Amino acid sequence: MSIRISSVYSKTDERAANFASFFFVAATKAALDSFETMDLERHDVGDDDVGFDLAYCGMCHTDVHFAQNDMGVSQYPLVLGHELIGVVNEVGKNAAAKGYAVGDKVAVGCLVDSCLSCAFCDKGEEMYCAKGMVGTYGSTTQHGRAGPNGKQTMGGYSTKMVVNERFLIRVPEGAHDKLDKAAPLLCAGITMYDPLMEFGVKPGMKVGIAGLGGLGQMGVKLAHKMGAEVTAISTTSSKEARAKEMGADHFLLSTDAAAMQAAAGTLDLILDTVSACHDSDPYAALLATKGTLVCIGLQTSNVSVGCHRMLFKRINVTGSLIGGIQRTQEMIDFCVKNDIYPEVQVINASEIPEKLQLLNTKNDTIVRYVIDCKTI
Amino acid sequence: MSIRISSVYSKTDERAANFASFFFVAATKAALDSFETMDLERHDVGDDDVGFDLAYCGMCHTDVHFAQNDMGVSQYPLVLGHELIGVVNEVGKNAAAKGYAVGDKVAVGCLVDSCLSCAFCDKGEEMYCAKGMVGTYGSTTQHGRAGPNGKQTMGGYSTKMVVNERFLIRVPEGAHDKLDKAAPLLCAGITMYDPLMEFGVKPGMKVGIAGLGGLGQMGVKLAHKMGAEVTAISTTSSKEARAKEMGADHFLLSTDAAAMQAAAGTLDLILDTVSACHDSDPYAALLATKGTLVCIGLQTSNVSVGCHRMLFKRINVTGSLIGGIQRTQEMIDFCVKNDIYPEVQVINASEIPEKLQLLNTKNDTIVRYVIDCKTI
Repeated sequence: MSIRISSVYSKTDERAANFASFFFVAATKAALDSFETMDLERHDVGDDDVGFDLAYCGMCHTDVHFAQNDMGVSQYPLVLGHELIGVVNEVGKNAAAKGYAVGDKVAVGCLVDSCLSCAFCDKGEEMYCAKGMVGTYGSTTQHGRAGPNGKQTMGGYSTKMVVNERFLIRVPEGAHDKLDKAAPLLCAGITMYDPLMEFGVKPGMKVGIAGLGGLGQMGVKLAHKMGAEVTAISTTSSKEARAKEMGADHFLLSTDAAAMQAAAGTLDLILDTVSACHDSDPYAALLATKGTLVCIGLQTSNVSVGCHRMLFKRINVTGSLIGGIQRTQEMIDFCVKNDIYPEVQVINASEIPEKLQLLNTKNDTIVRYVIDCKTI
Repeated sequence: MSIRISSVYSKTDERAANFASFFFVAATKAALDSFETMDLERHDVGDDDVGFDLAYCGMCHTDVHFAQNDMGVSQYPLVLGHELIGVVNEVGKNAAAKGYAVGDKVAVGCLVDSCLSCAFCDKGEEMYCAKGMVGTYGSTTQHGRAGPNGKQTMGGYSTKMVVNERFLIRVPEGAHDKLDKAAPLLCAGITMYDPLMEFGVKPGMKVGIAGLGGLGQMGVKLAHKMGAEVTAISTTSSKEARAKEMGADHFLLSTDAAAMQAAAGTLDLILDTVSACHDSDPYAALLATKGTLVCIGLQTSNVSVGCHRMLFKRINVTGSLIGGIQRTQEMIDFCVKNDIYPEVQVINASEIPEKLQLLNTKNDTIVRYVIDCKTI
């Protein structure tokens, strides 16, 4: 495998013949407006692999963090995107034996490899792999299933993908005509579904969803469908009507001190999707005894909660990161069966910088942007 | 029930005849040096009650918080003490039917009443009673089992106690000749035993105990006896030898940055007994994926942990408050059977102010002070 870069994009038939794929990438510096289109190669389709043509790729707030190098780990050029969906174009023999065939609708989420031998992988929690999971982009390959070791993985702002079938998701037939809406399920869907399952959401349980962006809207819809009594929590009062259309029973404006006080001690579980730094204690105050606050948005600051709540109410504060492969399959099956999709807006590849910039600022829409990969 | 106060202590036979008990109390202001002895009454022994003469009462760091009114809820006069142990002197008829008799060795911990009808009480978690538990001191009586409603409960810095048998603990025979050493089990013992049980400590589990005071020493001994690999964590290097004698496999000096770094990611569970305000993130950094940090010391500040640890390692941060009655009985049975007692120093009642002051300052001993109630 090699990475070759053309500094000026020129999509010609000749290039298409020479290189396996074309990719949009973040340029060599940490900035949201410096994207260039480059010709890069993926590894060949091996016996256990499936190759597919990308139809759509969703845009996640994590893409902003990586593009800007907020965590200090980004290496450029960097191909973003971990909500990939498309149509199989090549199948290795072992993958074929597992039932994959050219023309299948398939998807890839945030994971493309893990050790598959530790206690976490054994339990289907590949994202907590003891030896290190390999993320779909910006990760260094190891374990041998995502191409040669030591290379940086490349995400879905791209036209083609190759993945080991162990990390591939089958798109249920009900979503075959709405791949654009299904794409964000691969991150936004599983990121909310996993903690709802992990913390035992059931009918009547009182669940708060804080933040109503790409993740929060999926949290409201999923928790509602699971029978929970859902409170949507937001700083933006204009989102109330839409939140209730999506299934929220209550809307709590977090800047309204009286409303927050009135709701104190009432919730069993809160999924906090807000990734901007914020005070977590007002959310913790909403929890009943033994309630759980799950941080899902990646704040660069500490999470800080009053010690007295932890002692006197046994409040639990924890976090959650995407979800494992088996549960991702379970999630997409559940969503398609129940017609649960995020609100999406399909964009052209040329709009990527502008939409990332929107994600990086206070956003008063709840839409998930999805790249039409044919425009790359 | 009434509260009568003699401003000058004079223990005479006449007073002993007129009043049910004598008590040491914190005076009418928030200070550690303003104790006066007062004559106060407890409610009569009802059908479901047991009366007992106190032999010993342990001193807890919580007593310091209440004496000084650190939480802003103290009302004076205030009788401290929630580690009571003694000998039965009177038994109500229903309590007798449950097997209690004059001469029995009994004990009371931090709880004297709860609603006994909520989901938490049903599960034996009376400390999280949905309608409010009644603490052994400084609580307002309700639910009807700790005397007339609306009175302030009075603790064990005292000579006599009356308690509903539902909240009474039987002292196993093996401890009948060491009631002084057994007294602190009623708070320090259960406060550590409950989270060790709650979070599933088992042989080989890697457990950290932060802070080596009255609670921490019990944590080390209990976790060791349960088969855990115990790391004692302290700011005081002089406690290492004693910690290892008590069963710690490792000693980690929390001010040693290199040692803390070397131990990063190795522990499954940390019980943090430190009640002085401190940064919790260095402890959280010691946890393995899905590890749990349990705050047990009541800090007046927030507990603050890096968000990235919560997401990428699913670290849990929670708290624990004493334990329920059934588990307290289980704990004292376990401790007596396995000869697990705290290090104690028996003191006279007149030493109370001085020892509370010691508890309130940085303490380089690991001893639990126990009041000889005959000296009151």
